[in-house]
Amino acid sequence: MHADLLLHPSWILPVDPTDSVLIEHSLAIADGRILALLPSAEAREQIEAERELDLPGHVLIPGLVNAHTHAPMTLMRGLADDLPLMTWLNEHIWPAERRWVDPDFVLAGTRLASLEMLRGGVTCFNDMYFFPAVTAQAVAEAGQRGVIGMIVLDFPSRFAESAEEYVARGLQLHDQYRDHPLIRIAFAPHSPYAVSDEPLARVRTLADELDVPIHVHLHETHDEVVQSLEAHGERPFARFDRLGLVGPGLVAIHMTQLEDGEIARLAETGANVVHCPESNLKLASGFCPVARLLEAGVNVAIGTDGAASNNDLNLLGEMRTAALLAKGVARSASAMPAAAALRMATLNGARAFGLDGEIGSLEPGKAADVVAVDLGDSHTQPIYNPVSQLVYAAGRHQVRQVWVAGRQLIRDGQPLTLDAAAVIAEARVWAERIAAGEGRVLGRG
Amino acid sequence: MHADLLLHPSWILPVDPTDSVLIEHSLAIADGRILALLPSAEAREQIEAERELDLPGHVLIPGLVNAHTHAPMTLMRGLADDLPLMTWLNEHIWPAERRWVDPDFVLAGTRLASLEMLRGGVTCFNDMYFFPAVTAQAVAEAGQRGVIGMIVLDFPSRFAESAEEYVARGLQLHDQYRDHPLIRIAFAPHSPYAVSDEPLARVRTLADELDVPIHVHLHETHDEVVQSLEAHGERPFARFDRLGLVGPGLVAIHMTQLEDGEIARLAETGANVVHCPESNLKLASGFCPVARLLEAGVNVAIGTDGAASNNDLNLLGEMRTAALLAKGVARSASAMPAAAALRMATLNGARAFGLDGEIGSLEPGKAADVVAVDLGDSHTQPIYNPVSQLVYAAGRHQVRQVWVAGRQLIRDGQPLTLDAAAVIAEARVWAERIAAGEGRVLGRG
Repeated sequence: MHADLLLHPSWILPVDPTDSVLIEHSLAIADGRILALLPSAEAREQIEAERELDLPGHVLIPGLVNAHTHAPMTLMRGLADDLPLMTWLNEHIWPAERRWVDPDFVLAGTRLASLEMLRGGVTCFNDMYFFPAVTAQAVAEAGQRGVIGMIVLDFPSRFAESAEEYVARGLQLHDQYRDHPLIRIAFAPHSPYAVSDEPLARVRTLADELDVPIHVHLHETHDEVVQSLEAHGERPFARFDRLGLVGPGLVAIHMTQLEDGEIARLAETGANVVHCPESNLKLASGFCPVARLLEAGVNVAIGTDGAASNNDLNLLGEMRTAALLAKGVARSASAMPAAAALRMATLNGARAFGLDGEIGSLEPGKAADVVAVDLGDSHTQPIYNPVSQLVYAAGRHQVRQVWVAGRQLIRDGQPLTLDAAAVIAEARVWAERIAAGEGRVLGRG
Repeated sequence: MHADLLLHPSWILPVDPTDSVLIEHSLAIADGRILALLPSAEAREQIEAERELDLPGHVLIPGLVNAHTHAPMTLMRGLADDLPLMTWLNEHIWPAERRWVDPDFVLAGTRLASLEMLRGGVTCFNDMYFFPAVTAQAVAEAGQRGVIGMIVLDFPSRFAESAEEYVARGLQLHDQYRDHPLIRIAFAPHSPYAVSDEPLARVRTLADELDVPIHVHLHETHDEVVQSLEAHGERPFARFDRLGLVGPGLVAIHMTQLEDGEIARLAETGANVVHCPESNLKLASGFCPVARLLEAGVNVAIGTDGAASNNDLNLLGEMRTAALLAKGVARSASAMPAAAALRMATLNGARAFGLDGEIGSLEPGKAADVVAVDLGDSHTQPIYNPVSQLVYAAGRHQVRQVWVAGRQLIRDGQPLTLDAAAVIAEARVWAERIAAGEGRVLGRG
């Protein structure tokens, strides 16, 4: 067999149905796809590769899928913290967005986000923000994979005046990326409180026609549920169900407020939940009952949310927080074992967006979205179980090599498709501008 | 003024009463102590230093204090995860300890822990384990600062046969380190369920005589409280109070089960609490009501617990988890702001062990336990507020320079007093031995 690249790590975690831990196996890549996984001794005999890479002490995993973020918000990382949700939004984030968010902001912010995520092993992310065409362009240029949201809101922004215009601009975007190998377009109505029934119904119809998922903040806080009961006489999830939005194409973000019947309904309709544990903690939104969702058979993925409410886009760390928090919330130390956390951060994320035939696990025929993590650091030693070290002890700086569709994007921790110094310099220019607008002085660097 | 070393970072977070963020200031060190903090322009004029170090983009913080760990347990990192507490202890950790824990194990495990902690900016840690003289020796050799526990248990181990022998060996240790500049000795009765009234009373008397703190696992789980009610007719904290153990010398670890009266009593007696959020989550022990403790005026520090229940000794990450979790548990996004988390991980830890006159903040006259963190990475950019970036976004690999009592122990991320390759190799030898004992095969590296 001929391969373009043959990788020899110490372990492979393919995220297969039995959560295999492959010791002394190799992975072969050809034409951007995974050709084979086989014992290293056999691989060295049977496979002729253009290039071989020995990765002693490394574990190979599928590229991580960040199932919910707002990439350009990296430019507002740390702008306002430790504030009640509505103060944070009304007095800081929304005013800053109204004043500053334009295509240049989105380009600079997305590049910083791409750089951060690629370095941390995130090969695919699902995004919701203004000017999504700019985000799509930046992601494609970086060679990363993205699910880009056709954002819909009732209220105007610098991006669009009305729900109709948001939808129209979204449809343009969808047309533009119809056949792109790395970019998928999804609907992203912001939330039940920011989008009224009529545009939601329109989104439902169009999503069916275009066969795209619908990505929405749902049941993020208790207040959201209370306000919906007052305004609509029903909980947001019930309203979405009435409008026909609950089904396998629904990707419901947050879901910290859930009744038993809602969990059963999510399971029976095949809807997806994205858990964002760090954002939920930081904004004190509530606790998503992840263990109960998994038990009910709901597909649960993991997202970081945006950098203004986290404050990083570190899916490896988010996976750890998710695994730890699930145990605390379920009052069971066996809730969400390490392997389940890895599955949620890879295959479940892919599945939420209908991409599980293409990515999310290391399986022959799938795209070669592959990450090598070096477990040689003192804090991931000794190694009884690489899954445990990966989820409970590794830091994202241990991500050393990253490939998307067989193309290497990170080599020895350094980006190959993004100019890190230029991206950071551009982000600093934005920060100086935004801080000056608030009368604040920043230090060097 | 003459100094040995003059540091010019971009920011200094001295952890002073007003949570200052000093921009363009410098820190001077002489004879192992902090000589001055002053504007960099003045420093460059007024201070003659043997050596100056420009640290652009770095933030200088006090050395982190890990207020609770079991250092040698690094050798059991990831040996058993995702198991209910009693299965984990009874079937994995305790049998492994009975079989393997001897002075060589403790030496190898402590060295690995020291290496991990120093690299992560932990300049001082408080430890509880068997063969504490070996731990003390390893810590002193590494040049790190340690509070080493005189462990006391009712039941026998390879270290001691009876509570009396534990105490006797502890007193020897105390004598040995009476005047050591870096090592302090504290009492460490394991827990209310593992130590009976008589040795606890003895510990109380001796702690008064020697003027040392008493470090104990307390109210870690709901079951512990229930069992105490059955066995003693009172909650463990009430029993400790009856035995005279509750006071400024008490360092109570975990405290996930707390009634209002207990919080008031902790505050009025000046007792200290060490919060170990990640261990509490991983073992599903419960949630420490940190925001309520802080509000009541209780001194709360932060600990990682041992590497078998975390699974790292990353106090920077623990600080982040503490800050995030406190908000979720208190249902308030303004609970435990970033600066409070940093204070807990530094000055409050020092205060718990009576070391706040010596370490815990960057103040002229205190020992020069100083850490420089490089915030230049893409994921800590841009920087509106270095405290926010440090607590909510930085990874421990960004710790670049570490000094303890003015002596540099980490330079550019590399240890100067420990041979990293040798320490890791020794840990692997132990892991191979322990795994073989369980019939398990490990991969390379």
